[in-house]
Amino acid sequence: MTPLIRSSRRTTLALATVSALAITGTAAYAASGLAATGGATRLSGDQTAAVKKAIDGGKARNVILLIGDGMGDSEITSARYYEYGAAGRLPGIDALPLTGQYTTYSLYKDGKPDYAPDSAATGTAWATGTKTYDNAVSVDIEGKPLPTLLKLAKERGLKTGNVTTSDIQDATPAVQVANISQRSCFGPEKTSTTCPEAALENGGPGSITEQLLTTRPDVTLGGGAKTFAEKAKAGEYAGQTLAQQATARGYRTVTDVAGLEAVTEANQDTPLLGLFAPGNLPVRYTGPKATPTGGALPPVKCTANPERPSTQPTLAQMTTKAIELLDTPAAQSEGKGNGKAKGHDKGKAKGKAKGHDKANAQAKGDKGFFLQVEGASIDKQDHAANACGQIGEAIDLDEAVQAALEFAKKDGNTTVIVTADHAHTSQIVEGGSTTPGLTANLLTKDGSPLTIAYGTGAAGDSQQHTGSQLRVAGYGPQAANVVGLTDQTDMFFTISRALGLGER
Amino acid sequence: MTPLIRSSRRTTLALATVSALAITGTAAYAASGLAATGGATRLSGDQTAAVKKAIDGGKARNVILLIGDGMGDSEITSARYYEYGAAGRLPGIDALPLTGQYTTYSLYKDGKPDYAPDSAATGTAWATGTKTYDNAVSVDIEGKPLPTLLKLAKERGLKTGNVTTSDIQDATPAVQVANISQRSCFGPEKTSTTCPEAALENGGPGSITEQLLTTRPDVTLGGGAKTFAEKAKAGEYAGQTLAQQATARGYRTVTDVAGLEAVTEANQDTPLLGLFAPGNLPVRYTGPKATPTGGALPPVKCTANPERPSTQPTLAQMTTKAIELLDTPAAQSEGKGNGKAKGHDKGKAKGKAKGHDKANAQAKGDKGFFLQVEGASIDKQDHAANACGQIGEAIDLDEAVQAALEFAKKDGNTTVIVTADHAHTSQIVEGGSTTPGLTANLLTKDGSPLTIAYGTGAAGDSQQHTGSQLRVAGYGPQAANVVGLTDQTDMFFTISRALGLGER
Repeated sequence: MTPLIRSSRRTTLALATVSALAITGTAAYAASGLAATGGATRLSGDQTAAVKKAIDGGKARNVILLIGDGMGDSEITSARYYEYGAAGRLPGIDALPLTGQYTTYSLYKDGKPDYAPDSAATGTAWATGTKTYDNAVSVDIEGKPLPTLLKLAKERGLKTGNVTTSDIQDATPAVQVANISQRSCFGPEKTSTTCPEAALENGGPGSITEQLLTTRPDVTLGGGAKTFAEKAKAGEYAGQTLAQQATARGYRTVTDVAGLEAVTEANQDTPLLGLFAPGNLPVRYTGPKATPTGGALPPVKCTANPERPSTQPTLAQMTTKAIELLDTPAAQSEGKGNGKAKGHDKGKAKGKAKGHDKANAQAKGDKGFFLQVEGASIDKQDHAANACGQIGEAIDLDEAVQAALEFAKKDGNTTVIVTADHAHTSQIVEGGSTTPGLTANLLTKDGSPLTIAYGTGAAGDSQQHTGSQLRVAGYGPQAANVVGLTDQTDMFFTISRALGLGER
Repeated sequence: MTPLIRSSRRTTLALATVSALAITGTAAYAASGLAATGGATRLSGDQTAAVKKAIDGGKARNVILLIGDGMGDSEITSARYYEYGAAGRLPGIDALPLTGQYTTYSLYKDGKPDYAPDSAATGTAWATGTKTYDNAVSVDIEGKPLPTLLKLAKERGLKTGNVTTSDIQDATPAVQVANISQRSCFGPEKTSTTCPEAALENGGPGSITEQLLTTRPDVTLGGGAKTFAEKAKAGEYAGQTLAQQATARGYRTVTDVAGLEAVTEANQDTPLLGLFAPGNLPVRYTGPKATPTGGALPPVKCTANPERPSTQPTLAQMTTKAIELLDTPAAQSEGKGNGKAKGHDKGKAKGKAKGHDKANAQAKGDKGFFLQVEGASIDKQDHAANACGQIGEAIDLDEAVQAALEFAKKDGNTTVIVTADHAHTSQIVEGGSTTPGLTANLLTKDGSPLTIAYGTGAAGDSQQHTGSQLRVAGYGPQAANVVGLTDQTDMFFTISRALGLGER
């Protein structure tokens, strides 16, 4: 038997409890480590008071919502087991004190439930409190646009941020900043044909990217630079690229971690746009892709992805910087930023009394912020049956959660919620086994085989989303509303309530 | 669009909230039912106070632990969606106010983690607080016997019950009443060859059935009658069947629902043994078994299983009767029962001052009870890729949970915990799709297709357990200890603490 390392505190307390229970006359014996009675517990005594203390029904100054795309309980478990071992803890995700489950179904256009939803419908659920059809970005099943958490927060004078490891036009970030009938309408080209109702040339609000620029969060960080090479087809910026438009509208654009770190303020005068890759950001880990016989191969470790450039910020770095920039009071930023601001949006804010940008620029108080952070490629690597890819992205998200929690604990008035949009394919199966689908065999920190199966798509095809309810976990004001069974749409109301978005 | 039925209370409250949020100038629109903003929420306003109120750190008089074998979040979700619709609630399982997740890994015999555990190791985890190897029944990885919750409760003078839909010798019920190296050692025959260390003829404590009779819970209900036809190989009852032995030791045996309903007391003088089938109890529903092309077939409803006899009690009936019999104070039962008790155990209790059975018979106070209830065939039907079978068993367990909660709410001093032992194969995939494994297509209450995939075993083979963390939910004293991330072994300490099993 290999005794595994346990914290001495835990072991001591667990053994004390066992000792108190040793009332049966069973002789003492020598099993140790995880094999000892109490050796695998995660709690050290009664947590009743701690759970009660974690419940705070008040208002939050800030809300940070972190989404692991496709991060079902299976994905959380495999990431924990691989990186930290069976008895380990994900230092961020597992540290949230209040936990529950929520349902994720979407709707078909006839209003009947679709039990295996996509990321657009599920994101719309928490961004707007509304169930909709797959591919819909914050429009209802009749195509009508819906107010989103980020827009509502912005209208209330809060600062706002939107961070992802995918294209920033991808469904999960898009649901906060755009209203459009199809998630694929990243830029003007696709929008003309696929989302004509939204095209600028048809009098619509534009593609997802154009709507993002109009929504104007203070901080937008992710991938998706390639869409910015497309040109607007109508309106004030017709013929200019979206990158040129961003500059003209006062955005500061950064493209690498050094540029990001150098930014010291982001606000309505000079919103920050970080575009760190043409599309999705390269992932943390590589390893054996699952194959029909992969589970029976000797277990291996994941390796650092050589295609992830050192100039690319991690999700934790993006999250930390976003928090730093958003935590600066809006009024203070405005004062500092006014001298540098230029271009259309500033002019509009000055000239139009009821203009949307003006309303924000006028916010005087320190009203806090709303930040959404997405670990996008847990989903994308699960689709690709890439176990190491998926695990690395969950670990990256966990580090972002750690950053959020660290801030929230220091701040004392911030709600952190961590959840996912939909469940996914990957399952932990018997070590060394194969299945009718694809498997990969990894070697965990424990030195045990972690065999991961992908069984919803054929080799080479995309693995499917699945329909299981998901873990939702929270810290801070209103976080008790994640406990028990909720629906994804409840999250909209929970966050709205925490930030007072329904109040006048 | 088909508006789905919503409770008027929920709709009213949700719309009121939406109205408060309508600060964006978006025109009112007509989407209704699940498609309306707030139409799919499960909460009606802030639950902070309700969650706080649900937290009770005190002692419990009784603990009822209900286990859905193999009931991962996917199995819970598909049962809810099928039976009650997407916006529905499982009236029992979904009603537990406090929720969390726990890890379920077992150990290999060298002490390293096995991430896809079996029901023996996982049951041992909560029954004893100890991680062990697959197939082990409340022995540690070195084979040493461990005190179990049921035995500890009994030694403290609590009444005890053990209810299942499987053979009562199966792993999950066995972990509370026996200590043996291999779960398959139901009776003396198998034990001679597979668990020789436990065989009576070798001086051991006997097979699982013989240990069950010795442990002597007040109430034991389930299947598994066929093993009682085996004969003891040594000891006082050598040559007699285990059924004869049960009678000789004072057990009252019932075999159908009428017999069960007629029982008015069960105690150490006359423990109740209900054996309602030769093996596992026939399940509630039948339907199409998953096949390689089943997902693409038109969706169908499950049907009542014609092979389930009307004389067989449901899990809810067994649970209700067990609670009724256990809730009778031990002292009172003893008084009533003394006149009828006969045979070996009574004699032993009278003759031996320190005898185990005597200790229980002497319990004077009303010390409450510990009851374990298992819905066993969620797992067995998941192994068999039988979606309707699995769903019906989850619904049966849910009805048992309703019975437990109803009692607990009336009693005011009872903890109810609902969880599972390990995750399983079934996944909800895109409606109407097929996968490399097996699929079945069901028609839910919503009228939508619920396509369930089984991808960890080939057609005709057993589908595998999976390793995901699981939902654990609780009500009553100490239930707050299920919130957050725990391990399955924590449950032993939580229940021990609730019942004061560690106190002298």
